[in-house]
Amino acid sequence: MSFQRPNGRAADQLRSVRITRGFTIHAEGSVLIEFGQTRVLCTASVEDKVPPHKRGSGEGWVTAEYGMLPRATHTRGDREAARGKQSGRTQEIQRLIGRSLRAVFDLKALGERTIHLDCDVLQADGGTRTAAITGAFVAAQDAVTKLMATGKLAASPITGPVAAISVGIVEGTPLLDLEYVEDVACDTDMNVVMTGAGHYVEVQGTAEGVAFTRAEMDQLLRLAEKGIAELVAHQAAALKLAL
Amino acid sequence: MSFQRPNGRAADQLRSVRITRGFTIHAEGSVLIEFGQTRVLCTASVEDKVPPHKRGSGEGWVTAEYGMLPRATHTRGDREAARGKQSGRTQEIQRLIGRSLRAVFDLKALGERTIHLDCDVLQADGGTRTAAITGAFVAAQDAVTKLMATGKLAASPITGPVAAISVGIVEGTPLLDLEYVEDVACDTDMNVVMTGAGHYVEVQGTAEGVAFTRAEMDQLLRLAEKGIAELVAHQAAALKLAL
Amino acid sequence: MSFQRPNGRAADQLRSVRITRGFTIHAEGSVLIEFGQTRVLCTASVEDKVPPHKRGSGEGWVTAEYGMLPRATHTRGDREAARGKQSGRTQEIQRLIGRSLRAVFDLKALGERTIHLDCDVLQADGGTRTAAITGAFVAAQDAVTKLMATGKLAASPITGPVAAISVGIVEGTPLLDLEYVEDVACDTDMNVVMTGAGHYVEVQGTAEGVAFTRAEMDQLLRLAEKGIAELVAHQAAALKLAL
Amino acid sequence: MSFQRPNGRAADQLRSVRITRGFTIHAEGSVLIEFGQTRVLCTASVEDKVPPHKRGSGEGWVTAEYGMLPRATHTRGDREAARGKQSGRTQEIQRLIGRSLRAVFDLKALGERTIHLDCDVLQADGGTRTAAITGAFVAAQDAVTKLMATGKLAASPITGPVAAISVGIVEGTPLLDLEYVEDVACDTDMNVVMTGAGHYVEVQGTAEGVAFTRAEMDQLLRLAEKGIAELVAHQAAALKLAL
Amino acid sequence: MSFQRPNGRAADQLRSVRITRGFTIHAEGSVLIEFGQTRVLCTASVEDKVPPHKRGSGEGWVTAEYGMLPRATHTRGDREAARGKQSGRTQEIQRLIGRSLRAVFDLKALGERTIHLDCDVLQADGGTRTAAITGAFVAAQDAVTKLMATGKLAASPITGPVAAISVGIVEGTPLLDLEYVEDVACDTDMNVVMTGAGHYVEVQGTAEGVAFTRAEMDQLLRLAEKGIAELVAHQAAALKLAL
Amino acid sequence: MSFQRPNGRAADQLRSVRITRGFTIHAEGSVLIEFGQTRVLCTASVEDKVPPHKRGSGEGWVTAEYGMLPRATHTRGDREAARGKQSGRTQEIQRLIGRSLRAVFDLKALGERTIHLDCDVLQADGGTRTAAITGAFVAAQDAVTKLMATGKLAASPITGPVAAISVGIVEGTPLLDLEYVEDVACDTDMNVVMTGAGHYVEVQGTAEGVAFTRAEMDQLLRLAEKGIAELVAHQAAALKLAL
Repeated sequence: MSFQRPNGRAADQLRSVRITRGFTIHAEGSVLIEFGQTRVLCTASVEDKVPPHKRGSGEGWVTAEYGMLPRATHTRGDREAARGKQSGRTQEIQRLIGRSLRAVFDLKALGERTIHLDCDVLQADGGTRTAAITGAFVAAQDAVTKLMATGKLAASPITGPVAAISVGIVEGTPLLDLEYVEDVACDTDMNVVMTGAGHYVEVQGTAEGVAFTRAEMDQLLRLAEKGIAELVAHQAAALKLAL
Repeated sequence: MSFQRPNGRAADQLRSVRITRGFTIHAEGSVLIEFGQTRVLCTASVEDKVPPHKRGSGEGWVTAEYGMLPRATHTRGDREAARGKQSGRTQEIQRLIGRSLRAVFDLKALGERTIHLDCDVLQADGGTRTAAITGAFVAAQDAVTKLMATGKLAASPITGPVAAISVGIVEGTPLLDLEYVEDVACDTDMNVVMTGAGHYVEVQGTAEGVAFTRAEMDQLLRLAEKGIAELVAHQAAALKLAL
Repeated sequence: MSFQRPNGRAADQLRSVRITRGFTIHAEGSVLIEFGQTRVLCTASVEDKVPPHKRGSGEGWVTAEYGMLPRATHTRGDREAARGKQSGRTQEIQRLIGRSLRAVFDLKALGERTIHLDCDVLQADGGTRTAAITGAFVAAQDAVTKLMATGKLAASPITGPVAAISVGIVEGTPLLDLEYVEDVACDTDMNVVMTGAGHYVEVQGTAEGVAFTRAEMDQLLRLAEKGIAELVAHQAAALKLAL
Repeated sequence: MSFQRPNGRAADQLRSVRITRGFTIHAEGSVLIEFGQTRVLCTASVEDKVPPHKRGSGEGWVTAEYGMLPRATHTRGDREAARGKQSGRTQEIQRLIGRSLRAVFDLKALGERTIHLDCDVLQADGGTRTAAITGAFVAAQDAVTKLMATGKLAASPITGPVAAISVGIVEGTPLLDLEYVEDVACDTDMNVVMTGAGHYVEVQGTAEGVAFTRAEMDQLLRLAEKGIAELVAHQAAALKLAL
Repeated sequence: MSFQRPNGRAADQLRSVRITRGFTIHAEGSVLIEFGQTRVLCTASVEDKVPPHKRGSGEGWVTAEYGMLPRATHTRGDREAARGKQSGRTQEIQRLIGRSLRAVFDLKALGERTIHLDCDVLQADGGTRTAAITGAFVAAQDAVTKLMATGKLAASPITGPVAAISVGIVEGTPLLDLEYVEDVACDTDMNVVMTGAGHYVEVQGTAEGVAFTRAEMDQLLRLAEKGIAELVAHQAAALKLAL
Repeated sequence: MSFQRPNGRAADQLRSVRITRGFTIHAEGSVLIEFGQTRVLCTASVEDKVPPHKRGSGEGWVTAEYGMLPRATHTRGDREAARGKQSGRTQEIQRLIGRSLRAVFDLKALGERTIHLDCDVLQADGGTRTAAITGAFVAAQDAVTKLMATGKLAASPITGPVAAISVGIVEGTPLLDLEYVEDVACDTDMNVVMTGAGHYVEVQGTAEGVAFTRAEMDQLLRLAEKGIAELVAHQAAALKLAL
């Protein structure tokens, strides 16, 4: 008998996904994305300069930062600004978000400007990094649309959508989109980032307990593929709405 | 002729105030407070221990931290966690919030526990520190109510409400509750923190341009008194709602 | 019956004030200021460049740093340089000193140069920030005089004197210029910065214990006004002496 | 036509692997591992205490730190100790090494002690993290053998070998064990960590340029499996030698 | 023809030495020492606990910190507290002061307490580290006298005086007690720390320009010996005065 | 009767010295130097720019950094990169290495380029700083030879060899080249840096226990002179080998 998910969710079912564009007013793109109880505010800010390694290259840059409000979680965590440094986990996640978004950007077509993606977790219930990637794409799209509307860009530097989802094995059952209680209980945890075309941008699988087999990996990859196709549809639906 | 405020607001009029309790699910108190376009998320977290200077004293502690999301503002600011330190401004504000809330707490009655107030600005349009204090009080009240409901506290350690508002002089006109464009234009800027009984907890007035006179200060203090009375009423109304 | 001050000082009496110009030899202005047992060394250093936010503006800058020798106090405090960061209190004070001095500087008339005011407490007995502001003004004046004497400035960018004093309520009695034992005992503590013309530059009042009333604030402001008039006279007397 | 590897290496061929145990004298385990020109010194140090989150749990801990000598690379990099912080890349790698080694440790059987694995790159030519994991296992094994020889452990807490290899696609050709020039040129880069039993501990695949397909991933996983089987044989051979 | 010193000072002549005890009121020992225009405030603070490496040893500890006010020098230097770290030079000097003072302390006889020596340069004109050591000894002696007067120590843990002086070769002439302009011009610079008995505690000689010969070193050591004998006499004279 | 050294070494005998050039492949100079069990990897890296204080001066710069692998020692030390700062000892040593090497460089002849000397201790058994200086000279020489071979320098900016050795007094016996157990036991410890011409670059003597006499210093200096002459011969022999 397999693991019973909270709220009777099916093993291959995403939590309810909500994407709210224009959540705050100042940023060129501002998206609140919700995967169930996980809520991440993703803003895209356009800056008309690039970091040193891109200066004079004619290319732009896309970069991300990630943060978690101290009480986004069950028990309060330290504020990283007060501690004076970002944790290894934070840095790992923001590097992942940055790479994932760059995978769908033609940096030459972007021109010498930077898009900063800030992903701040207001409420955490598992899957914050995958929600962040999925929401950051929508925010980036809105920022690009604005650059085109104001004539700063003639054509979009975005080559297609990108989204991410977690999958894992809990008590032998492969599950899609782990929420917190499942994440804690899982033996294997995998985050998958894919393009709208169904190709892989990142695969990060970790055995928390027992090492996993090739057969298990195949099951997880199939689940992820299904989930990401659904997320890409959610992104498309949200972007069709007038802002 | 006096200064015309945006949206035809009267000189002694607060922006629209909204207080949303239970904005996030994990914290003992979680309040989104809005002063017009300024939005601050205030959470209260209870921890069953106290900092070193209070250990063994039988007294509790109330402390605050303040942060601003990088794109809460018109142009993106550095993330303090990434820079590796909090600015002087941030520290000044969080010390102010902490002192203001402690002014209405009987720390002995709180017992050896700490209430952490995290005030994170999601969107800034002037008055973030005064919104933070006003919202933090509601979050603290919710946390105390929970401590009493679970029998951890027999009586409330809160001695009354506390709220804060900014006042300032723009082109010779004393104004209540400055929004960003007014804040930038003002000659004198004052933040006032008062109790529900109409007594002062903090007064911080700064001449940005010309030094101000005693008569001007008196005008500003009267405006602040009016604004705070209205904020205390907003707090009371919000707290009457079932959560 | 009212509170008895140490050494039979009257409630509205300053401690003995001593201002020693030319205390050290290298700085353009170097002043040891003493408010009773509180001793602060204030130096003014002129640098022929400005911070980034003023570059190319044609304007100068005035900035302050504050420090406390580890054993300036009753018990030894940590050395901030060894701990690797300045406390929130230190930053708050040095920001206050900087703003206070800028209030009497015409930055355009100063030209593109910076005056650094370093205020280092050699011995602390209450009122270090107010002594620092009062002494820093004299050091700044000496530096400006030197700039004029060497032909680097044709006219003074200083618009008038600035000085600061603390006032507070101890056991119900409003007192001028709190020394350490009074500071520890006081319910309300207010630092007031005023120009020679008797206008306010900064007012920072804090209720340490009970919140204070409007009537009490008025009493404190009157005391401060009296004290600052005396301090401005002390500054003038010191500046008349040949160096 | 496929990509020609340096030195005529076959696409599925490891670089020459050398494992030198007892490379330094003080550590409980000290291994120099070489994957071609990549050379990493891995030491295992046993400490008779555990970090706070394991205190009193009866369990031990295995943790790793990673560093790169400033001139291990083609051009000199900053010394992280001098810069005052470890880069995101360094933290990501040392977290990966730690997780990988913990995957083959029974922490209960280890008892309340910590094994610190220090992996320092003396010379870099691609694949430093996979060499580090593969070498750290041998160092850890030597440390455990010493604990058993001195009677501190009755049975080994190690459940089996663990090793790691990189695979990637360069100009369409899937390659095993990328060296630096290949790493720079590759479109897809994957690091795979597996146990001696052929199960996965970590899979981290990244599309540097174009996103990769499921078919490509399958090719890469097969190559990795082959490489790791060979590395596990190298580890076994090295460990059979008397020290 | 040899180098002409400022103010007609002889090659083997100290600058005027002034030792003012009780310079500040809070510290157990507080000494302003002046070597000509170099002025260092040395305080000794007694703390009734020891650092971790001495806990439970029955022994005490003597340690030093060194700082330079930003405008102690000709041009303003950065404030180390603001920069967030002490320079290598500062650390080198404070380690030297600590070792020098420990050389004349019987740590067992001191008991489990720490003497903190804070040496802060108010004005620099060469020789700040040697003035600091010489002054710190007097401050430490005053602190010990106080411990004995209050019955906390039965016998003095100090085994004898310690003092320090710089010597150097400028344009071929060996000079005692270099002031700033000489320090800048010198080829060889040596700091010598000796006990009252004429034995060496530290010798630190550095060739700034050309390497120096054994004969030159011998000349410098003789000069230093003479200077230190005079400094020890100054210390003794200062300590004979009633405080 | 005098102190018996480990392995029957004579009091005036160096440990076996090994100098391996070309130890790693990327650096312009790369030397593994061994003084008995002490092993330090010294690399010289050439960079075509200079630090700010040399820009536009036409002169070059030579600088050093020093590090110790965490388990180079008997018990594991903290990794400085992880702790976020270099210890005072590390800074003291790297400043000493830099000064020592600059003593044999004509910075004008070097031109506006920097030579970075990285000295990393792989295994420590006393004398790491003296081994580092002695090895860094060989690495620097190799880097200069490469600059001349590629036509970037017409003549060598090196004025002659430099080497360093430790000497000390253990149980009354003056010893050359202290190894760890002797270092721990010694009363007096001196590090001497000399040129090939037998002149002093640095002398740093410290009394660990009792202060030392002039006669003892003379004995130590004679021992050091002998040792350094032998080290200079070792350097010359190593440099004669084809690389």
